[in-house]
Amino acid sequence: MSKILAKLDQNESPIPPPDNLLLNRYKDIVKDINRYQRGELYEYLRELYAEYAGVDKEYVWIQPGMDLFFEDILIIENNKRIIVPYPSYFLFIEQVKHYGYNIVRIPLNERFVQELSIVSRDKPSIIYIDNPNNPTGKIIVSKNDITLIAEINSDNIFLIDEAYYEFCNYTLKDLVKEYDNIVVFRTMSKAFSFAGGRVAFSIINPSLARKVFYYNIVRFRLSTISLGLAIALLENKSYMNDIVDLIRSERKRVIKRIREIGLQVNSSCTNFIMVNTGIPKIAELLQKEGVLVKDLGKILGREYLGYIRVTIGIPRENNAFLYALEKIIAECSQSRCTIHDTS
Amino acid sequence: MSKILAKLDQNESPIPPPDNLLLNRYKDIVKDINRYQRGELYEYLRELYAEYAGVDKEYVWIQPGMDLFFEDILIIENNKRIIVPYPSYFLFIEQVKHYGYNIVRIPLNERFVQELSIVSRDKPSIIYIDNPNNPTGKIIVSKNDITLIAEINSDNIFLIDEAYYEFCNYTLKDLVKEYDNIVVFRTMSKAFSFAGGRVAFSIINPSLARKVFYYNIVRFRLSTISLGLAIALLENKSYMNDIVDLIRSERKRVIKRIREIGLQVNSSCTNFIMVNTGIPKIAELLQKEGVLVKDLGKILGREYLGYIRVTIGIPRENNAFLYALEKIIAECSQSRCTIHDTS
Repeated sequence: MSKILAKLDQNESPIPPPDNLLLNRYKDIVKDINRYQRGELYEYLRELYAEYAGVDKEYVWIQPGMDLFFEDILIIENNKRIIVPYPSYFLFIEQVKHYGYNIVRIPLNERFVQELSIVSRDKPSIIYIDNPNNPTGKIIVSKNDITLIAEINSDNIFLIDEAYYEFCNYTLKDLVKEYDNIVVFRTMSKAFSFAGGRVAFSIINPSLARKVFYYNIVRFRLSTISLGLAIALLENKSYMNDIVDLIRSERKRVIKRIREIGLQVNSSCTNFIMVNTGIPKIAELLQKEGVLVKDLGKILGREYLGYIRVTIGIPRENNAFLYALEKIIAECSQSRCTIHDTS
Repeated sequence: MSKILAKLDQNESPIPPPDNLLLNRYKDIVKDINRYQRGELYEYLRELYAEYAGVDKEYVWIQPGMDLFFEDILIIENNKRIIVPYPSYFLFIEQVKHYGYNIVRIPLNERFVQELSIVSRDKPSIIYIDNPNNPTGKIIVSKNDITLIAEINSDNIFLIDEAYYEFCNYTLKDLVKEYDNIVVFRTMSKAFSFAGGRVAFSIINPSLARKVFYYNIVRFRLSTISLGLAIALLENKSYMNDIVDLIRSERKRVIKRIREIGLQVNSSCTNFIMVNTGIPKIAELLQKEGVLVKDLGKILGREYLGYIRVTIGIPRENNAFLYALEKIIAECSQSRCTIHDTS
């Protein structure tokens, strides 16, 4: 494989946080690394995040990754049925399969919300919704949608994954206070540029939290270093706004250019876009040019052959992607590499 | 409460690792903190720990805390029955209660192994054994014991918690290759002085691991910083041997002195001791003197009134404990504070 010019396959932020924010905090924390976490760090990060999210502190829980929240809920709820949009965040699907859950997939089309409200009547289930959705980049349910469905069957538990919230500003977090079966998930892995630090949040009604999370277990899962650095980042979050601004403006530019090339691309409310290139081997061809993207055909099957999910990076990376894409399309129009040619 | 002179309540190592081992590694890792974990870090730490533990690399898994291994296994196994020694590690008991497991407790007396082999015949269960046991500090099962029981009912899963292995050097890890239902757990929280870093290991037969752990989920739970620092510590582990030597020699000294005072104390294979003081409020009285210890009466109930679990610290901390203990005993012999006096 050639040198990697642009790593656009994991929806990471392209820029680390300013390291001057972090070094002193690290030095302060590591002096006590032989000790278990001091409860104050966990509590203080809860407080900071609650303020940031605009909820009460006791609604906020922290863990080293969203999947842990999912597991904690899935182990307590035992109907073992989960309803998900199709497509949706693929690692979540892998996780629930591994736990032996039955998966009901609802296609993401204009009948999605209606279908969801019908299926959710059958029997109490967990309903997972990534909002914005991964890989389409779109908001797929509104507050009204979820309120209506939540009132039909109050025994369902709604997991609302808002990993990309900062790029979108649409949130269902206000529903959590009224509905104790709606949980919202957030992360510092995306806009906060802290994927390696493993800090995820849930915003959850305390009455449900008591059932699914055990405080003295959960709070020990975070390293004191991750907690300390996350605190430093939230205390100095203007860097995050700068990154979000950059990504949004680059997203606009990249989408515009792709449409000029003549390809189909959704508008997006996230730090990635979904592109239908019509070229089944597009991910592989891009990789040869040093550009890593997610091959949706590989993950989602035939229906998504030729589709890729592309993270928005810094200008240099996006240009590398656009350049490689145009080059491949030009070559393909001469040879035979579209879906119709190969089928 | 007065100033804390000695924090001896969580079985932590009293000394952090030398920080010159860690700083450069931190700086190297944090540059990419916006990225998800590179698989190489996880794989390299597996390799290092496998070498340290004397097992093959594919037997080693890593997570930010043992409780996560427990949860991953408990969510897959669904008989919801667990067999534990009484007493044993109290946070584990809390965790399985929270998950709705039925708990069968087997008293830790001379009939323990016999009783365990009888109860484990009934129906497939999870059998948790902390070996050495917490809080008694003793090895409670031998290789032969476990081999015999494992052969009676191969559908049981044995969770062998060796958190204190380094202070003891007794291990059941060699059984894991032959028995795919025996899992051994280790940690860097104790002898490696890395409690705040959250790095725990399981040594598990690959055939069971495939069922209970999902690689692409599990490996993302560790922060890149914790992984990087853990690698630096294992690459330079002589500091750990020094700590273990110090704790062992202090353990000997403290036990000798307690016996001279006339109290009952077990020999111990860990970095803590269990002391029967005969004074119900002993933990509270020690706290007033600035010495924190674990009050076993509070956790285990009436039978353990007056018992404390005391971590072995550095000489200064142990002296603070011994001084306070002698002072309290002297005062108690004049007033009326033993169990007999208060009952």
